[in-house]
Amino acid sequence: MASAYKQVPGRLETNRDQNGVIQPLLTDLYQITMAYAYWKCGKKDDIAVFDLFFRKNPFHGEFTIFAGLDECLKFLKTFRYSQTDIEYLKGVLSPTTEPEFFDYLLDISPKDIILYSIEEGTVVFPKVPLIRIEGPLPMAQLLETTLLTLVNYSSLVATNAARFRMAAGPEKSLLEFGLRRAQGPDGGLSASRYCYIGGFDGTSNVLAGKLFNIPVKGTHAHAYVTAFQSLEELKERHLRRKGTEESVDFIEIVKSWLHKLTNALGILQQETSEGELAAFASYALSFPDGFLALVDTYDVLKSGIPNFSAVALALNELGYRSVGVRLDSGDLAYLSMEVRRTFKQIASTFDVPWFTDQTIVASNDINEDTIHSLNSQGHSINAFGIGTHLVTCQRQPALGCVYKLVEVNKKPRIKLSEDVEKVTIPGGKALYRLYGSDGHALVDLIQRLEEAPPTVGRRVLCRHPFQEAKRAYVSPAKVESLYKIYWRDGEICQPLPTLEGVKQKAQQSLANIRQDHRRALNPTPYKVSVSDQLYNFMHELWLSNAPIGELS
Amino acid sequence: MASAYKQVPGRLETNRDQNGVIQPLLTDLYQITMAYAYWKCGKKDDIAVFDLFFRKNPFHGEFTIFAGLDECLKFLKTFRYSQTDIEYLKGVLSPTTEPEFFDYLLDISPKDIILYSIEEGTVVFPKVPLIRIEGPLPMAQLLETTLLTLVNYSSLVATNAARFRMAAGPEKSLLEFGLRRAQGPDGGLSASRYCYIGGFDGTSNVLAGKLFNIPVKGTHAHAYVTAFQSLEELKERHLRRKGTEESVDFIEIVKSWLHKLTNALGILQQETSEGELAAFASYALSFPDGFLALVDTYDVLKSGIPNFSAVALALNELGYRSVGVRLDSGDLAYLSMEVRRTFKQIASTFDVPWFTDQTIVASNDINEDTIHSLNSQGHSINAFGIGTHLVTCQRQPALGCVYKLVEVNKKPRIKLSEDVEKVTIPGGKALYRLYGSDGHALVDLIQRLEEAPPTVGRRVLCRHPFQEAKRAYVSPAKVESLYKIYWRDGEICQPLPTLEGVKQKAQQSLANIRQDHRRALNPTPYKVSVSDQLYNFMHELWLSNAPIGELS
Repeated sequence: MASAYKQVPGRLETNRDQNGVIQPLLTDLYQITMAYAYWKCGKKDDIAVFDLFFRKNPFHGEFTIFAGLDECLKFLKTFRYSQTDIEYLKGVLSPTTEPEFFDYLLDISPKDIILYSIEEGTVVFPKVPLIRIEGPLPMAQLLETTLLTLVNYSSLVATNAARFRMAAGPEKSLLEFGLRRAQGPDGGLSASRYCYIGGFDGTSNVLAGKLFNIPVKGTHAHAYVTAFQSLEELKERHLRRKGTEESVDFIEIVKSWLHKLTNALGILQQETSEGELAAFASYALSFPDGFLALVDTYDVLKSGIPNFSAVALALNELGYRSVGVRLDSGDLAYLSMEVRRTFKQIASTFDVPWFTDQTIVASNDINEDTIHSLNSQGHSINAFGIGTHLVTCQRQPALGCVYKLVEVNKKPRIKLSEDVEKVTIPGGKALYRLYGSDGHALVDLIQRLEEAPPTVGRRVLCRHPFQEAKRAYVSPAKVESLYKIYWRDGEICQPLPTLEGVKQKAQQSLANIRQDHRRALNPTPYKVSVSDQLYNFMHELWLSNAPIGELS
Repeated sequence: MASAYKQVPGRLETNRDQNGVIQPLLTDLYQITMAYAYWKCGKKDDIAVFDLFFRKNPFHGEFTIFAGLDECLKFLKTFRYSQTDIEYLKGVLSPTTEPEFFDYLLDISPKDIILYSIEEGTVVFPKVPLIRIEGPLPMAQLLETTLLTLVNYSSLVATNAARFRMAAGPEKSLLEFGLRRAQGPDGGLSASRYCYIGGFDGTSNVLAGKLFNIPVKGTHAHAYVTAFQSLEELKERHLRRKGTEESVDFIEIVKSWLHKLTNALGILQQETSEGELAAFASYALSFPDGFLALVDTYDVLKSGIPNFSAVALALNELGYRSVGVRLDSGDLAYLSMEVRRTFKQIASTFDVPWFTDQTIVASNDINEDTIHSLNSQGHSINAFGIGTHLVTCQRQPALGCVYKLVEVNKKPRIKLSEDVEKVTIPGGKALYRLYGSDGHALVDLIQRLEEAPPTVGRRVLCRHPFQEAKRAYVSPAKVESLYKIYWRDGEICQPLPTLEGVKQKAQQSLANIRQDHRRALNPTPYKVSVSDQLYNFMHELWLSNAPIGELS
């Protein structure tokens, strides 16, 4: 019956085609109009160099995790306008557009593009080109929007995830629960993928698990608890003693444990919710080996914890080990410590020492500051489930990567600006990370392509790109060249790591920068410098491009 | 060569299948574990009612535009687990999971679900269920995450767009330029679609244009300007006089106009950039009928405007009418007024009166407050291109819709909470919007299903859902019933509007609420009330569910 929004039958309402690849029309219109103008004025075979970079680290921090390269390369691999794309563009562009241009578009592909990139997962800094694109001007231009789209959010959310990881420390389990608060379906999928890269352990998003092999996690919602009112509702009451065929009335054991527990804890049994107990018991019957209960639907300490403990100890009696509890509201520092105290008391009263260490998951609107605050107050949380603040990157919901033309036909281009931070660094460039003898990165050094690379033990002058007096000699203990060619001759020409590999790269790369660059509060900026030769080159070009005014 | 992330060949790395529909595994794992537990404890045929609603309007505002329904219905229409989904879930769930459950999942579909909803595009308010789902408990539960994902961001960004529209006023043109700053590819596509609903006129996103028939707009980037250095580079210099076959050296005409203009404006010709002039001229040769130039690559007033004007007046000489300029940096209020003043001066000096009204587009990191500030300073901007702040909803990047169980097998459920705002309104409910005699909505009234609807001219008691003393009689001049059944018997059972229709609905619905609810600064909250019968029903249930403690 419904015709819904779309006006043309058979169109896919998706950014990807049937092979899951991103459609080349996922771009800004001006890329197409510029391509036409380049084509028309005789610049279609000009060879351009574009740099993709950002100007400011997100979240008041001093580092960024570079992510999204894998998707960029797949986009190049499948880049082709379809016949229906061309038909659509004919309707959009002016009727005066020459028909030969559409033949050109139908034929265009990134076969003559060369893509240099830093490795995905690497820690990166402002002004450093993450990706360099070389090739015919119109084709290189046509890649802009999609590459920015693929790098911007991926790097932003991976960086956010890495910050949560640092705040929580290496021991805590971090779970991404953000699907419902993401920018629609694919926002959620991207979030799951890149939070994993940034250091999360798993996601609630099942499709992300299926597509990317990310561990998926989850238990139950408040709705599950409120769906039950009494133990009488349970049609299934029996559980086998683990490893045997003996079937036991589980509910009776649960009841008897609740009685013992409320006595031991000095809680009135009438304050515990029977609906909640029924929900926990039925959930345990379904997942006897993985029982984790959401304990805050009613009162955490007077109902949730006694009910959970009754079910957990009943499971224990039949040979199963429960996992723990989840807190989704209230004062997480206080509650987690009270819950832990109760677990200890039960462990001691009933001689079940393992019970002390039941997992406590917290998941109520947690942001990076919440974790720092919990750390300073003290808490007993083992795992965090994080949604909204993680995936929306609330503190800064966009990374401002840009894509700037730096060379045409071997001639450097400079974009001048009143704001010196917005001046681009012209020409194709090489990039090195110089390390000190303690293994930490000291500085990133950008050079002209024709310069010899810096060498170990030999001092090299590193200059601030815009401030003449800021410069220092560095004698690197190690030199890492950061660019590789990932795409040439129409093919991906580097082995690409798995998602797991990118995740490891991110953690290693973070470990290689000093703690004071990484810390949350007032971090020290990491230095990005240019060689003396590049400094002089860009400043000469700057002068020769800047018009001379007259004071009047 | 590349194996990339995905571990299993042939998998689609997308949230949608080859028909563009959302995959049912785009959900949180706990929906599946809960479905198993419901199934196992004998609740699979329980009939549940869930409400989807939010608790707080976004952006410190007092209204929200409801969007995403069309996508929700399509999701229901195609909801089926595939064989590979089931295989994946077998690996994820505990090995003790009974195999019959997977047969049940393979067979499950929303055929017994009934979906009630408010019309897409309607202005809505906190606590009001936007969607009510009735049906078998596990199936109804399984819809939660995906419905939330589809409604949350859609409604958020449509509301944001509507706020920009109100700030800019009905006459200005509003263009969505956010693709590169969205949450990956589909975030961008969702943004384009729902900003259009919220009141935007077009997007730069070509794919959104192709898929949803949204007008697409765009001109050129700074890169286009920096790609040129001199007029000598242009291989094409000729343009036909409009409507004739006479081909003229366009560049010569441009040069002569630049000479006249710099003299008239008192600008040194050496301060204008020849590369910029070449870029504008070549762009005009490609789009003689749609020439709009980005004028801030060098100096707006000393280079961009004289260059643009030279090209525009050269076009005019050959019978073409230019469109205008875009400003992407600097003080937009000052620059737009200076540009307008210059246009007027040129119009008068060269007797081209139409030149005064050339379009001025502004597009530099604009948010809602920027527009309010420009309005109060005064400006001459005709159109805004808005990206980051629009699509990321920077001021509040997530809408907190929730999905709460309110009834099982005809028995109401109430979720209690220490925080009274989090208590749910139990049972299935009817919803009416009551209008005053001036045509504006007075109040939304939630009733129990069995109550008679309010009638025109007859006073009805409207009560605050939680505060006993807050109540008022209302005599509506018009009563609008807000729910329709959109899905029943496995089918969409309402004609769905076009995207254009939803957009109109949003504007009409906004016009029906009072200006003081809509305004940006300190808006008045709109009242959502319950009937006296519903009030008493929920408070009795509340009391009977709340355990009685003992003071000690």
